[in-house]
Amino acid sequence: MSKSLFQTVSIDLAERSYDIHIGSGLLNLEAMLDGLPRATSVLIVSNETVAPLYAARLAESLGKKYAHVLTLALPDGEVHKNWQTLNLIFDTLLQNGCDRKTLLVALGGGVVGDMTGYAAASFMRGVPFLQIPTTLLSQVDSSVGGKTGINHPLGKNMIGAFYQPLRVICDLDTLQTLPDRELSAGLAEVIKYGPIADLSFMDWLEHNMDALRARDVTAMAHAVQRSCEIKAWVVAQDEREGGLRAILNFGHTFGHAIEAGMGYGAWLHGEAVGCGMVMAAQLSLRLGLVDAGLVARLHALTLRAGLPVVGPVLDATDNAGRYLQLMRLDKKADAGQIKFVLIDGASKATVQGAPDALVREVIDACCKA
Amino acid sequence: MSKSLFQTVSIDLAERSYDIHIGSGLLNLEAMLDGLPRATSVLIVSNETVAPLYAARLAESLGKKYAHVLTLALPDGEVHKNWQTLNLIFDTLLQNGCDRKTLLVALGGGVVGDMTGYAAASFMRGVPFLQIPTTLLSQVDSSVGGKTGINHPLGKNMIGAFYQPLRVICDLDTLQTLPDRELSAGLAEVIKYGPIADLSFMDWLEHNMDALRARDVTAMAHAVQRSCEIKAWVVAQDEREGGLRAILNFGHTFGHAIEAGMGYGAWLHGEAVGCGMVMAAQLSLRLGLVDAGLVARLHALTLRAGLPVVGPVLDATDNAGRYLQLMRLDKKADAGQIKFVLIDGASKATVQGAPDALVREVIDACCKA
Repeated sequence: MSKSLFQTVSIDLAERSYDIHIGSGLLNLEAMLDGLPRATSVLIVSNETVAPLYAARLAESLGKKYAHVLTLALPDGEVHKNWQTLNLIFDTLLQNGCDRKTLLVALGGGVVGDMTGYAAASFMRGVPFLQIPTTLLSQVDSSVGGKTGINHPLGKNMIGAFYQPLRVICDLDTLQTLPDRELSAGLAEVIKYGPIADLSFMDWLEHNMDALRARDVTAMAHAVQRSCEIKAWVVAQDEREGGLRAILNFGHTFGHAIEAGMGYGAWLHGEAVGCGMVMAAQLSLRLGLVDAGLVARLHALTLRAGLPVVGPVLDATDNAGRYLQLMRLDKKADAGQIKFVLIDGASKATVQGAPDALVREVIDACCKA
Repeated sequence: MSKSLFQTVSIDLAERSYDIHIGSGLLNLEAMLDGLPRATSVLIVSNETVAPLYAARLAESLGKKYAHVLTLALPDGEVHKNWQTLNLIFDTLLQNGCDRKTLLVALGGGVVGDMTGYAAASFMRGVPFLQIPTTLLSQVDSSVGGKTGINHPLGKNMIGAFYQPLRVICDLDTLQTLPDRELSAGLAEVIKYGPIADLSFMDWLEHNMDALRARDVTAMAHAVQRSCEIKAWVVAQDEREGGLRAILNFGHTFGHAIEAGMGYGAWLHGEAVGCGMVMAAQLSLRLGLVDAGLVARLHALTLRAGLPVVGPVLDATDNAGRYLQLMRLDKKADAGQIKFVLIDGASKATVQGAPDALVREVIDACCKA
């Protein structure tokens, strides 16, 4: 296969810089492994859904470079993103005599990527890791930024590390087996990049939403590439989430309240973010930051992506109060002050607080039982 | 109290640089907190032995700067250095609404420091942390280098992170309550710095060993300072243990085999290292790297520190074979090749392999049931 089959986004983080390769047929492409460090053993970490589809093919490619290729299939789902499951990775590594040079390969969606990344950050205080995201959400979101971690019973992603992969390989072919609902969830994070950073990308999405939902490889390649570029541009300026990076949480403040209030897993993360973007846009409108036209366009685009645009009622007696309570518990809140990512209609986002009364108005207007 | 009561060693690690303050009465000294970041809450993590002695005094000092000061006393001992205990820290942080700015303070020996540091590295992907080592071993060893972590049932320190504290405070008064056996164990890591880096420090130790065992504060201050300086000099050149830093493991290859073979906790880490240094010196002698005079001096000094100089028999039928087997499993081994830190009698150490037959001779000569 020729090199023209894939395109590359470079993530610039000094000595932690790496490339994201995006294209078709990459799992079979040995060139994807060029330049990776030597090691005696490799552990592919996947889950019970993805491993049967792609692990053997990947193991074959890896086997041409590495002597021992192990595969571990974790139970599938956010509910397993915990210490017990993480420990299965450590058990496998230690039972098979893996060492400080062992390469971990994450093959799966965000849960697999987050857990494998955190395992790589922690095993013997850090081993190299390669990320092969197989969902749209993980290709456009967790493939850039180095966030890894697990959930704690008292909060999502509460335990983790910033840890960068050596390389990310986004094989678009893996998106063909993705359930429709997960494809839509991924599109939420793609749409997000428009209003916060690039309105011309939002135009492009409006013209190509049907092709994306039909999983057209050329459209998908552009969507993944542009999303990664925008996220990379933000992360390069703020690797450890001190400031600017917060704009990537557009839709996430309301979204996390929905996820927490419904019980994690009831709504997919991307679904909650999609609905949360609509709510955050409404809040921006009520604060006079953005015009109604853009809010309506975002609403329509989110709907066309197959995402919910009406929030759930989390509490029958005081729904807005319950949203506020959950948002104050969010780890991005600062001393109980809720931080909202708001848009200005000119490809920019700001992070700021808002009066409770106004937030209540938005919640009342956007939610329905 | 005046500033002249303490001395400072600066650890130079670019944006992760920090100071170690060494002196008397430092737990009460508010100046120790100057320049630490603002936060709403602080969690002191200690253990059931140390907390009753010093936590209240420290909490009082911290209470002058921070609104909420929490204290958590973990169960004491290496056997508790595991995920279950680490999770008590996360539980406490989350149950008390701690956030990304919460300061963690480790008050205790190496186990408390390692677990608190790893909790700080992992909680919300990293919160600031202050280290207050209360044992000689942790003051001269774990206060420099940023190694944090927990044990896994299949290996010691297998899960962790490199994570630097904001500051280290070595209050020498806390050494007054240290059991004699732990004082001796700490002296092993002090003695170590002589042969690998500074023979004049070895001379000084020979002249001051009685004062150190009597816990003379002036002698102790110098021993802690010089140990931290030497370790800092090594770590600054090799923060993530790629090369030079390995010389700090002088005595540890044989020592870890003793600890693992006897069952962790039977010998204190420092006791195993003390005996391991004598064995590593013997191996250096048999390889013609060092003269017998220095080996004899190290043997005598280790003995005067109250440390064992004769290794235990780990296997009645093939003792040397058992040592070799355990050393090959060590995480510093590279593809089964054991790495020994050897000395040359000129304040320098090298890391290299050695013929099994020679290693067997050393083990046979140094061990007794």
